[in-house]
Amino acid sequence: MKVEYINPFVASTRDLFKTMLNCEAERGEVGVVTEGSRAGDLSAMIGLSGDVRGTVVLGFPIDTALKVAGRMLSSEMQTVDEEVIDAISEAVNIVAGGAKAKFNSGGGPPIALGLPVVVQGGDYNIDFPSKSAWLDVPFTSELGPFALRITFESAAAGTARL
Amino acid sequence: MKVEYINPFVASTRDLFKTMLNCEAERGEVGVVTEGSRAGDLSAMIGLSGDVRGTVVLGFPIDTALKVAGRMLSSEMQTVDEEVIDAISEAVNIVAGGAKAKFNSGGGPPIALGLPVVVQGGDYNIDFPSKSAWLDVPFTSELGPFALRITFESAAAGTARL
Repeated sequence: MKVEYINPFVASTRDLFKTMLNCEAERGEVGVVTEGSRAGDLSAMIGLSGDVRGTVVLGFPIDTALKVAGRMLSSEMQTVDEEVIDAISEAVNIVAGGAKAKFNSGGGPPIALGLPVVVQGGDYNIDFPSKSAWLDVPFTSELGPFALRITFESAAAGTARL
Repeated sequence: MKVEYINPFVASTRDLFKTMLNCEAERGEVGVVTEGSRAGDLSAMIGLSGDVRGTVVLGFPIDTALKVAGRMLSSEMQTVDEEVIDAISEAVNIVAGGAKAKFNSGGGPPIALGLPVVVQGGDYNIDFPSKSAWLDVPFTSELGPFALRITFESAAAGTARL
């Protein structure tokens, strides 16, 4: 695992907030995730494949998710419905797509994207195989706190390690 | 969405059970998933990218997951621990990898695989963007029932529809 791989995703997350949500997203310190997810959060994830395999997750407390989707849809969202799922799916797609472009133009390993998946509920955990490490970057924003979580395994190098 | 895309995954699931678990897996009728997942199930998923983007999910009731992992590990598993997560991740990786090989040798669209993710918990739902359709193939086996769920969006054709 190369920690610098996370930077295009951080930059892409800030771009999303700035250009689509008209709002600054301030990042905190990168940490290593030990628990797979925070129950209650809405987790929007998208798979990465190619020379680097992994998963990018945007983890939103429900209130943040509703505000982000509401800003994208120019509407006030009260519950997590199909429109919210679609908006949040689009958000993680934009973040991953922006990072992919940065990788591919910056000489990084080429990556391809899967399809967004949204997991929500009051009691769940997201786990990865034990040989993967999962980085966590907390963010704060006017729309509420959220987290960018990312795991990578280099297909060339085999096992991903920090 | 081409329904025949599901066939390599069905064949690969049966291969996994036959060759690695020494057990026949009998498939039921293909259905369309309306609810994203069954809470309580352990859902092992892996993303597909390339000309076809999507997600493959093996959904196991906990008892089936423990038996499948136990057979893979030649041990009796009592709880969903790291070893079980790794074994179930490996199972979905084998199913997707087998299907990928069948696609790539059979003139189907080339696909690349992401990294396995396992979601578990007593209260959760897995959702996809509304333009995706999700097929469900129930299976029965000596190790218990389980389901193969798969969603596809053709990158070439844009929106996936049944």
